[in-house]
Amino acid sequence: MNPVEIIKHKRNNNILSHDDIEYFINGYLKGDVTEYQMAAFLMAVYFNGMNDDETFYLTEIMLNSGVVIDHPDLKSVKIDKHSTGGVGDKTSLILAPQIASCGIAVPMISGRGLGHTGGTLDKLESIPGFNIHYSIDDFRRIIIQCGVVMIGQTDMLAPADKRIYSLRDVTATVECIPLITSSIMSKKLAEGADGLVFDIKIGQGANLPDHEQSLELAKKLLAISKKFGKKAIAILTDMEQPLGRNIGNWLEVEECIELMNGKMIPDLYKLNNVLAGAMIYLGGKAGSIEEGEKIANQKLIDKSTYKKFLELVEIQKGDVDYIKDWANLKRAKFKKEIFADESGFVSKMHAMDFGFTAIELGCGRKKTDDKIDYLAGIILKKKCGDEVKKGELLYELYAETEEKLAAGVKRSEKAVEISAAKPVLPKLIIDILE
Amino acid sequence: MNPVEIIKHKRNNNILSHDDIEYFINGYLKGDVTEYQMAAFLMAVYFNGMNDDETFYLTEIMLNSGVVIDHPDLKSVKIDKHSTGGVGDKTSLILAPQIASCGIAVPMISGRGLGHTGGTLDKLESIPGFNIHYSIDDFRRIIIQCGVVMIGQTDMLAPADKRIYSLRDVTATVECIPLITSSIMSKKLAEGADGLVFDIKIGQGANLPDHEQSLELAKKLLAISKKFGKKAIAILTDMEQPLGRNIGNWLEVEECIELMNGKMIPDLYKLNNVLAGAMIYLGGKAGSIEEGEKIANQKLIDKSTYKKFLELVEIQKGDVDYIKDWANLKRAKFKKEIFADESGFVSKMHAMDFGFTAIELGCGRKKTDDKIDYLAGIILKKKCGDEVKKGELLYELYAETEEKLAAGVKRSEKAVEISAAKPVLPKLIIDILE
Repeated sequence: MNPVEIIKHKRNNNILSHDDIEYFINGYLKGDVTEYQMAAFLMAVYFNGMNDDETFYLTEIMLNSGVVIDHPDLKSVKIDKHSTGGVGDKTSLILAPQIASCGIAVPMISGRGLGHTGGTLDKLESIPGFNIHYSIDDFRRIIIQCGVVMIGQTDMLAPADKRIYSLRDVTATVECIPLITSSIMSKKLAEGADGLVFDIKIGQGANLPDHEQSLELAKKLLAISKKFGKKAIAILTDMEQPLGRNIGNWLEVEECIELMNGKMIPDLYKLNNVLAGAMIYLGGKAGSIEEGEKIANQKLIDKSTYKKFLELVEIQKGDVDYIKDWANLKRAKFKKEIFADESGFVSKMHAMDFGFTAIELGCGRKKTDDKIDYLAGIILKKKCGDEVKKGELLYELYAETEEKLAAGVKRSEKAVEISAAKPVLPKLIIDILE
Repeated sequence: MNPVEIIKHKRNNNILSHDDIEYFINGYLKGDVTEYQMAAFLMAVYFNGMNDDETFYLTEIMLNSGVVIDHPDLKSVKIDKHSTGGVGDKTSLILAPQIASCGIAVPMISGRGLGHTGGTLDKLESIPGFNIHYSIDDFRRIIIQCGVVMIGQTDMLAPADKRIYSLRDVTATVECIPLITSSIMSKKLAEGADGLVFDIKIGQGANLPDHEQSLELAKKLLAISKKFGKKAIAILTDMEQPLGRNIGNWLEVEECIELMNGKMIPDLYKLNNVLAGAMIYLGGKAGSIEEGEKIANQKLIDKSTYKKFLELVEIQKGDVDYIKDWANLKRAKFKKEIFADESGFVSKMHAMDFGFTAIELGCGRKKTDDKIDYLAGIILKKKCGDEVKKGELLYELYAETEEKLAAGVKRSEKAVEISAAKPVLPKLIIDILE
């Protein structure tokens, strides 16, 4: 076996065996397969794809390149959720305590903001003191104590994925279903969950905007989950406009706290509830997603979600008083209100524009070492379908400097479209696949 | 402009601009584009190809990465030939002196054996003392003195091609028409020729066995030649069986000397004559290829080709006495004769099997630093279409050690097929394109 033959085999659209893939990935980790050979291989996979078996082998080999966490002392079932990334998508912050409050453990390892989409870790770190760096022993300990734990990726989990992902990023091989699948799955399987719910974003603000490709990704994720003996549900959801009203790290935490305290935010509530229903169903605490949704709703109404959230913040060293003070609206120094320049209906609120606007405002990073302004962000005062009068407030922008505010204002200029007729809106929950 | 965007552009099947390609290739030479980015780019080109403009830009940029030799003091027209590589293909050794003897200069820069195919440089070096390492000044001087010069690739000519070719070799991106075209053309254009004849091999023993791909390569080479203002002819020729009777470095030189001294070797003579005719026609010394063939034939009959060959050997420090002693058959130490095990007609003599057999015998390299046995090789006693009786001699193998001989015998086991009916043979000259 040699690297060139394996690249050629995939290039010629042949099926790779378990041994081929193992030789190639492990050879890469050992240095027998070079960076340029991996790059050529990834591009060949981009063009010719991988069937379910190949994707399974790739995932398994990447998973086993690191530690796979087991939870021998945890009696409850463990369910996690993964989202392909959106703008204003803060459901993890609600779901994690909500599902834990149902007696289902949530071992959640999350990422940072990427491109125009936000990251759960950055949102958690907007809570002063909140620690997302824990050892695997602490990870096991916290989930036993609290039923939920939320940390960042460590070098011990799926290191092959980390190296391959970095290479994909600089060789234009990111947008490839089997590679996306094995990257997601190798990290998620390392957490030790029994079941997974995938929130697959579709639309202009999604990382994979195309409907057909998103459907393909959903099917691939389900197929690979099945091969690993994991229960899984994939939910295709709309990402044409941002989810909820707030975009930005603390602003999103605040919106979650509002929801957990009884405020109705229709789209955020609805998406969260379906994901929660699916997780509860997978966790065996409900006979269907719908039944799970009812239980989830109850856990919001009786405030047990919020209580569990405070418990999680406390156990992970976050400032609970800062959370409890949420109604004392914490905002960045500079503010700009944007008004409608015509009357009609809001027909578009481009998620990608708002995502990049948030970056300009200081919510994300342009370079890896950029500092985040946790109070910066956007508050939407209208959403798609809303009627609006000329001069009425559309959204507010917050930033810590006038320069960042001005850059945000400029970047958001074309984010909103107003039409004379009431627009037909895409469904929020597009499809549910098991 | 950044490397990832350019890779993505080609990956998405868009057309690259001159500036894109210049940035990418020059960036690679400067180190701004990494090896793994070039590898991903080459694989994207493998899948999505390059149109004539892109191939032209790529060739031009690779050509200009090094010295482009001019010949200000040479009055005669300069024509060269390039073959895509075959087994037993020794026409360069005849053509170079033959065309020079017509008053057309031949500035020839050749390569070494590659895969199962032989290389002109290795054949020249089987002549004791023959020097293929000359400076560009010497290259210019020898062609003025002798009308012909035959040297090896130097680091000064198209260094971008050298680096990219090495990378293609280890990333399974060799078999790609625009990359093959730009590699051939950037080296050939660096010689300073006014016109080029391409011998494009088709069939099981060719580097690009597929007819359609070979035709595509021929058209691409002609298109790019035209864009550079060079006259060109492409001749598609059969490479199902080895060309001529001898395979191996000195054995091939010897066969050329035989032909130059009047021996008729039908297929070698015919292919050589057509290529010579095309070169003479391109050089303006004949009104058509056919007329050129007549002139070429005359230059064989009157021995001026052989005289020019001896002159070339002398000027490039080769041992002329060794050449003149050709009839005193020089052979490797060990010999094995292979006989027909049935009667009938020779229907196949697989060129690739004989090519790899020659490598086993010591005619080529498995690793770059392998030593070549110049007297080793194969002499075919039958060719396709010949009638054969059981027990009759098919071919002879020569090697310097018994081990190499045994390996050659084994490798050639399935090289010959015998059928009851007289086979229909492919045409030697398949097509001529201008």
